[in-house]
Amino acid sequence: MTKNRGVALIVSGPSGVGKGTLISMLMKEFKNIKFSVSYTTRKPREDEINGVHYFFVSKEEFQKMIEQDKFAEWAQVHGNFYGTPKQEIEQKLRQGVDVIFDIDVQGARQLRGTLSDGEFVFIMPPSMDELEKRLIKRSSDSHLEIEIRLKNAEQEVKQSSFFDYIIVNDDLERAYESLRCIYLASKLKVRS
Amino acid sequence: MTKNRGVALIVSGPSGVGKGTLISMLMKEFKNIKFSVSYTTRKPREDEINGVHYFFVSKEEFQKMIEQDKFAEWAQVHGNFYGTPKQEIEQKLRQGVDVIFDIDVQGARQLRGTLSDGEFVFIMPPSMDELEKRLIKRSSDSHLEIEIRLKNAEQEVKQSSFFDYIIVNDDLERAYESLRCIYLASKLKVRS
Repeated sequence: MTKNRGVALIVSGPSGVGKGTLISMLMKEFKNIKFSVSYTTRKPREDEINGVHYFFVSKEEFQKMIEQDKFAEWAQVHGNFYGTPKQEIEQKLRQGVDVIFDIDVQGARQLRGTLSDGEFVFIMPPSMDELEKRLIKRSSDSHLEIEIRLKNAEQEVKQSSFFDYIIVNDDLERAYESLRCIYLASKLKVRS
Repeated sequence: MTKNRGVALIVSGPSGVGKGTLISMLMKEFKNIKFSVSYTTRKPREDEINGVHYFFVSKEEFQKMIEQDKFAEWAQVHGNFYGTPKQEIEQKLRQGVDVIFDIDVQGARQLRGTLSDGEFVFIMPPSMDELEKRLIKRSSDSHLEIEIRLKNAEQEVKQSSFFDYIIVNDDLERAYESLRCIYLASKLKVRS
């Protein structure tokens, strides 16, 4: 038997909804899952490592990669560019490695077109009020930034029906069990 | 919000593979799952209750139901007739009740055509040798019957790629976790 192709698990949803936490939990339990490292033009935060969290590049480098058709998807979000490299992902999947994506809704929709398969999961906030509370608590953003993120979140929630699965993150343990089951079920799928 | 439509979970696989045990475990944990009770012309076994395990009917009654198009699927297996009633299932699903089916491969293929949706799960024996051992251990069948069941099993395994999911039942706890996750994931699916 040939090695099975890896599963692509695309996790999307509004900023502050808890995507990152859920993804970390899943990668901690399942060592065969690798994180899809995106390219970005935004400045690294203090704790971010080049090549682990993102590949940090200049606008010029990013532009060149677009022209060379290197991205499975790319988008401009809150004024910065983000892109998923095509070749690296395809190679991992072919080697049987599972790849998880932390990606905005725009990007997810593009990925649907360029990836041959994948499980698309939308993480939904319990409510907009709750999301606002979480963004304020995280408090890395200014008041204006929080307002922009909330406006975006409203738009993103409207697009949730485009996804394969919706998980409401009202309770972290329960949301994690849901994501875990979606992942495990996807490994049992018959693929043609 | 209107009540969500129930999930139809179709569990199939060779005789002796452990479908019944897995289904019982799932129904014990999740009380919203109801068992699809089939009609059959075969004689009830000692512990079987009419209306719980099967509806036991005569060949004439069964024939009449076929003519009246009452079945979502029906099949002749090992000389007896088995059929799934169409209306009752559709009604339960519409009421938001989840319905689980313990059904042979022939029947599952027919259901695919008549049910508008459903998760089709094939339970695979770890090997044919292991399946033979289990059938002998169960020992309710004669030597000849076991041989027929094994021949059927070979044919059924060949059709497993028709299903949505395959679970290899080499370890009951693990197989149960797989079925449980398929069920839970199906509840999170976005349905149009």
